[in-house]
Amino acid sequence: METLTRHPPTNTTLSPQEVRLINAYWRAANYLSVGQMYLLDNPLLREPLTLAHIKRMLLGHWGTTPGQNFIYAHLNRVIKKEDLNMVYMSGPGHGGPAVVANTYLEGTYSEVYPRISPDEAGLKKLFKQFSFPGGISSHVSPQTPGSIHEGGELGYSLSHAFGAVFDNPDLVVACVIGDGEAETGPLATAWHSNKFLNPVSDGVVLPILHLNGYKISNPTVLARITHEELEQLLRGYGWTPYFVEGHEPELMHQAMAATLDAAIAQIKQIQQEARTEGNTTRPRWPMIVLKSPKGWTGPKVIDGLPNEGTFRAHQVPLSVSATTPPEHLTQLESWLRSYKPDELFDEQGRLLAELAPQGDRRMGANPHANGGLLLKDLHMPDFREYAVDVSLPGVAQASDTQTVGRFLRDVIKLNNQPRNFRIFGPDETLSNKLEAVFEVTNRQWDAETAENDQFLAPTGSVMEMLSEHQCEGWLEGYLLTGRHGLFNSYEAFIHIVDSMVNQHAKWLKTTREIPWRRPIASLNYLLTSTVWRQDHNGFTHQDPGFIDHVINKKAEIVRVYLPPDANCLLSVMDHCLRSRHYVNVIVAGKHPAPQWLSMDAATKHCTEGIGIWPWASNDQGIEPDAVMACCGDVPTLETLAAVSILRTHLPELKIRVVNVVDLLKLERHTEHPHGLSDADYDAIFTRNKPVIFAFHGYPWLVHRLTYNRANNSNMHVRGYKEEGTITTAFDMTVLNELDRFHLVMDVLDRLPHLGNTGSYLKQLMKDKLIEHKLYINTNGEDMPEIRHWTWNA
Amino acid sequence: METLTRHPPTNTTLSPQEVRLINAYWRAANYLSVGQMYLLDNPLLREPLTLAHIKRMLLGHWGTTPGQNFIYAHLNRVIKKEDLNMVYMSGPGHGGPAVVANTYLEGTYSEVYPRISPDEAGLKKLFKQFSFPGGISSHVSPQTPGSIHEGGELGYSLSHAFGAVFDNPDLVVACVIGDGEAETGPLATAWHSNKFLNPVSDGVVLPILHLNGYKISNPTVLARITHEELEQLLRGYGWTPYFVEGHEPELMHQAMAATLDAAIAQIKQIQQEARTEGNTTRPRWPMIVLKSPKGWTGPKVIDGLPNEGTFRAHQVPLSVSATTPPEHLTQLESWLRSYKPDELFDEQGRLLAELAPQGDRRMGANPHANGGLLLKDLHMPDFREYAVDVSLPGVAQASDTQTVGRFLRDVIKLNNQPRNFRIFGPDETLSNKLEAVFEVTNRQWDAETAENDQFLAPTGSVMEMLSEHQCEGWLEGYLLTGRHGLFNSYEAFIHIVDSMVNQHAKWLKTTREIPWRRPIASLNYLLTSTVWRQDHNGFTHQDPGFIDHVINKKAEIVRVYLPPDANCLLSVMDHCLRSRHYVNVIVAGKHPAPQWLSMDAATKHCTEGIGIWPWASNDQGIEPDAVMACCGDVPTLETLAAVSILRTHLPELKIRVVNVVDLLKLERHTEHPHGLSDADYDAIFTRNKPVIFAFHGYPWLVHRLTYNRANNSNMHVRGYKEEGTITTAFDMTVLNELDRFHLVMDVLDRLPHLGNTGSYLKQLMKDKLIEHKLYINTNGEDMPEIRHWTWNA
Repeated sequence: METLTRHPPTNTTLSPQEVRLINAYWRAANYLSVGQMYLLDNPLLREPLTLAHIKRMLLGHWGTTPGQNFIYAHLNRVIKKEDLNMVYMSGPGHGGPAVVANTYLEGTYSEVYPRISPDEAGLKKLFKQFSFPGGISSHVSPQTPGSIHEGGELGYSLSHAFGAVFDNPDLVVACVIGDGEAETGPLATAWHSNKFLNPVSDGVVLPILHLNGYKISNPTVLARITHEELEQLLRGYGWTPYFVEGHEPELMHQAMAATLDAAIAQIKQIQQEARTEGNTTRPRWPMIVLKSPKGWTGPKVIDGLPNEGTFRAHQVPLSVSATTPPEHLTQLESWLRSYKPDELFDEQGRLLAELAPQGDRRMGANPHANGGLLLKDLHMPDFREYAVDVSLPGVAQASDTQTVGRFLRDVIKLNNQPRNFRIFGPDETLSNKLEAVFEVTNRQWDAETAENDQFLAPTGSVMEMLSEHQCEGWLEGYLLTGRHGLFNSYEAFIHIVDSMVNQHAKWLKTTREIPWRRPIASLNYLLTSTVWRQDHNGFTHQDPGFIDHVINKKAEIVRVYLPPDANCLLSVMDHCLRSRHYVNVIVAGKHPAPQWLSMDAATKHCTEGIGIWPWASNDQGIEPDAVMACCGDVPTLETLAAVSILRTHLPELKIRVVNVVDLLKLERHTEHPHGLSDADYDAIFTRNKPVIFAFHGYPWLVHRLTYNRANNSNMHVRGYKEEGTITTAFDMTVLNELDRFHLVMDVLDRLPHLGNTGSYLKQLMKDKLIEHKLYINTNGEDMPEIRHWTWNA
Repeated sequence: METLTRHPPTNTTLSPQEVRLINAYWRAANYLSVGQMYLLDNPLLREPLTLAHIKRMLLGHWGTTPGQNFIYAHLNRVIKKEDLNMVYMSGPGHGGPAVVANTYLEGTYSEVYPRISPDEAGLKKLFKQFSFPGGISSHVSPQTPGSIHEGGELGYSLSHAFGAVFDNPDLVVACVIGDGEAETGPLATAWHSNKFLNPVSDGVVLPILHLNGYKISNPTVLARITHEELEQLLRGYGWTPYFVEGHEPELMHQAMAATLDAAIAQIKQIQQEARTEGNTTRPRWPMIVLKSPKGWTGPKVIDGLPNEGTFRAHQVPLSVSATTPPEHLTQLESWLRSYKPDELFDEQGRLLAELAPQGDRRMGANPHANGGLLLKDLHMPDFREYAVDVSLPGVAQASDTQTVGRFLRDVIKLNNQPRNFRIFGPDETLSNKLEAVFEVTNRQWDAETAENDQFLAPTGSVMEMLSEHQCEGWLEGYLLTGRHGLFNSYEAFIHIVDSMVNQHAKWLKTTREIPWRRPIASLNYLLTSTVWRQDHNGFTHQDPGFIDHVINKKAEIVRVYLPPDANCLLSVMDHCLRSRHYVNVIVAGKHPAPQWLSMDAATKHCTEGIGIWPWASNDQGIEPDAVMACCGDVPTLETLAAVSILRTHLPELKIRVVNVVDLLKLERHTEHPHGLSDADYDAIFTRNKPVIFAFHGYPWLVHRLTYNRANNSNMHVRGYKEEGTITTAFDMTVLNELDRFHLVMDVLDRLPHLGNTGSYLKQLMKDKLIEHKLYINTNGEDMPEIRHWTWNA
């Protein structure tokens, strides 16, 4: 084990003048941070502080702020010294005041928000807007220049940081990790990202674990284990930790500077050995543990209770209002003046200490943190060339995802130099039948390999770790820095990242409204191994509710596609990979299944998003007796099988078949940009005929989308209703009454005028269901007429 | 650092006879596991194997199975030797065949499923049902005796294990953790659970990390780091790891037996030192790393490709059917016969090797794994005694959660000896204003403490770690072993456990249908810091969609309550804590807010779940002009404020006020047990009058619940539509058009007959909105008329 660097190797890294400079810069950032929390006016304390200068509602979080200001100042120094291309990631919750203060000090804030000018008037506005109604929040938000990570929901900073550096060999992400955040599951596994980083073709993450000891009101776990345990843990995760511990500013400046110099030197050495000497051993990258008091430099004691270094420093430490003791105001003024603002700012309120890097080297201006600036269109193969040949509907069988896998293979091939497209997933790329991608790439893996491994290489376009959180975080980081990607997952388990996609969708919605933010590539999901195909898993693997979750997000952001066959999937995938600033959810099958549409027909159908299938309908030119609608591959199959039963037994019945690819077509155009007008909707679904809707997901979702349509009361939806076990695909539909026999009965129930003919057919359907149950119980597979059914009407 | 135990200290722990016995038992379990995957008939190989004996669909997972059989056999030995009270937790995915085989061997399987008898006929059924349509799944499922953990969605075994041992001082949970599962975030942080375990009052978890090297098709991270790193990692997590590595059965039996003996001895020593000698140092509990080949004892090579010890052993390694090479059948027969079934089973198919413990000591029969057997009712204080005094509606102000905190305090007090109630949450119990609980208990914390800590103690009823996954997993484990609990969380971030509650709801649904499983206490959520009160957080903290997610689960299982005030919250909380086998979601406010109902009125209102508030309505005896419905505390306040505006300006207007506490009352009674009949619904909402519904959550949820009601087309719902920032509570309602002024306009828009009076009032409302914006932009708080509004009609 290497010698600990708990005590810095030297106290002479910085000259006294450098110490003074960096300390002044830190004081300035701290001053601006406290100002944001408290001051409505008198921003430079040109006059004695009075209650009139204080905000009425004191909101915000001080605890993490001075430590982040300290880190930011030191990163500035090392960026300039080494000419680093560095992005700052603020992991701890509520570090907003720090990053706002620093980007203001370095000038980027005023560049993107000219009204927040670098003078006293701008300072006043800067202070007022913080935690003020309609202003900026107390965590680093999309409004903050230099940020691609929001400290709202905790746990994703390290995954985001790694996503940012993949395929960015010159980039360094300094990732500040809160010790509260470090308790979350996603963060706890994100440390293992170092087994997936290639030192040649990727950049590097410098994690800075900020041990300030407390969360809201509890201590943190990592601050309350022994130094030896913490060091073992971080080494066990594969890192070389450097410790900077203390609270005395001058010593801490020297220690931090020395440690940062050492860490950067080590990073450069590792990169050089890998890049020029071909050393492929997985490196132990450096990281820093900064142990400093929570609320560092803040009031030591408030109302007789210790504050600095305790959980009490988490939010606004000192309450100041007309109803608090007058000495609180005095204490606040002393606190603010302890940073000596008169020495820091000139008469006009401009900063006197020059420490920040210049231009794009400023972390607030780094273009990687506004990825849309760097985003390039993908080179796209023509998706039509991967078409399944469909001369007759329902005859050819193909795996939808296997087909799109060949398309994705060529997307990877065409965008490999420099690479700006990757596929992420939790060890399911093969299971999801995207194996064609491994003809041209590998899974990136920097840990040990063994003889019988497949498709592992030091660099590759597929990222697989058994953590949906990690995959999602990596992908988000990759997209936010201006690249493209796809998440492939089992449908049920994508719920694991529900809260992450929430936050990303909120980020997209907010950044749409920020002029200087450029659109980024969409977050694309390919969900397969769906609820209907759980032959060897069962009930735990059955949940189609991710789409319910996603469509609660802002309509401008979310898109949901359920292509019924391979050619439709090709068309949809092509569209999604070209799109910008959306969350696109694609749900598709992986098992061989009947194919319905030729490539031309599929392209047209997907462009419209919803349509009548004339070849399956027999209502040409007149109103149908019933509409049979379907959305999703299995529901489409069962609907068409039901239609063929109906047309065989009741040829005079006029059935219209409607297929929905783009789910949000169902919603009103006033609610979603893809929504149909009432006239268009009624032209498809009629205003008064029964609609039997076979839906991939929970049936209520269709009702939620169509409740205000004219024909709402005739809409009968079948879908997944939480009935399932380990069984055949067809039996799954039977358990949920979405199978062809139930669908036929559903039609018959709504057409009482059919009389005896209807009753007879209904009885036949019931008999079929019994026959099915008997057959499957004996044979363990579906009846031949189910397995070998083909469309023929 | 202690000496590694990678090589077992002795090879003489077991006598040759003991080795033979344990090996025979293991062979028997392996034989039964392979039989489950392949055999439809000829279960004891009494005749040469033919294709007729083989299942047509070969499904299941072999990879993890032999390792788990090995562990189970060794646990049996040590249970008997030490008379341990032990539960087995099968963390790896798809360990079903192993646990089914072992519980069959020990007799528990046939006891709960008499048709699966302990003879050849039973064996045949045991084999057939596995991965057969409608049979049992390939992961350990609720149907498996001895299990409280399903290996479907991975990552929660260790949290479940800790939840099971809290307040169970005699219990040992042997928790097998897959190395795939170990990559998930939740598992990666669950190792830290040892900082929250009290060696005196809690039992102990013995983690057994099963390094079999592969997931579906990738190697695992933990199997591909150095031994030194792995050991550092586990020591860094605070454990003492013992390593058992190899593949040669006899050596492995000796190593495992010696290691288990050592681990159990260490556990006993730690417990004794804590319990009798008062040693309160946090112990380094032992754990085991078992490194054995994936698919151990399976075919070495299949079709020329290595199988045992590679990812290819993950599922069914050898395909055997009419279309596969004939030698596959031979190879399968050799594989099966390699376990020498003739030596293991007698003529009747009964096992000859006696190793299993007896009675409840069998892990399949341990009552802790069927927690309903042990469940006792809580001792409940009378919730009415905590009532807020409400003589007039809307005058008194109180914090709803603070009020219920006092009730919870006494629930804790009354159920502390022995303790069977705990509160879980991610460091938010104080923030959520449940501080009263700390009058009688503490946060359980076994890591270091410091001078300024609050409410930390070696044992306590509150469990807080900044990981919603961990809290949820602990609570589930606690409930599944027959105790009671509550999860308190910020509303937005409960989405972090969406997928976990999915799996728990599925467990509840399935176990309802298993006669030998007894009901357990409900999983109760108290969600606060809601979307409407984000004065100091903002957009990231705004998501009321957990209820949308939950109600997709089976209607028999889920309940959702939105009490409008403190007395209603008391009534609802009392009800939920008494209930069984549900997922109860309670959404409530924490900030001081107007109180509406006296305790008697609240109890009646909550019992009915929905009702007209006559004191707020003026439609007595006649049909109203409009119904103003509300659900949730903030929507209730805004609705009542709107009603008072309407009644002031338009006294002749007949308004009916409806409040909904039990959200699923809105659904039809045919869809949910709480649902109203159409007649009852229409009596409240009318069949044709405008309904303005102010809803706490996403508005579409109300439409989804009411789409098929008579008055659907007149239902106008206001709710959260993803508009938000850091602002006042009232401004949040304005941004989402749920505020009193918009609600008044909504009513007016639907009553055109009001003519000029209506137009005048509408203009007034628009003016008010402008006035509000101007005021808040200047003052940073709401207008006095908003802040000081009280009901007075």
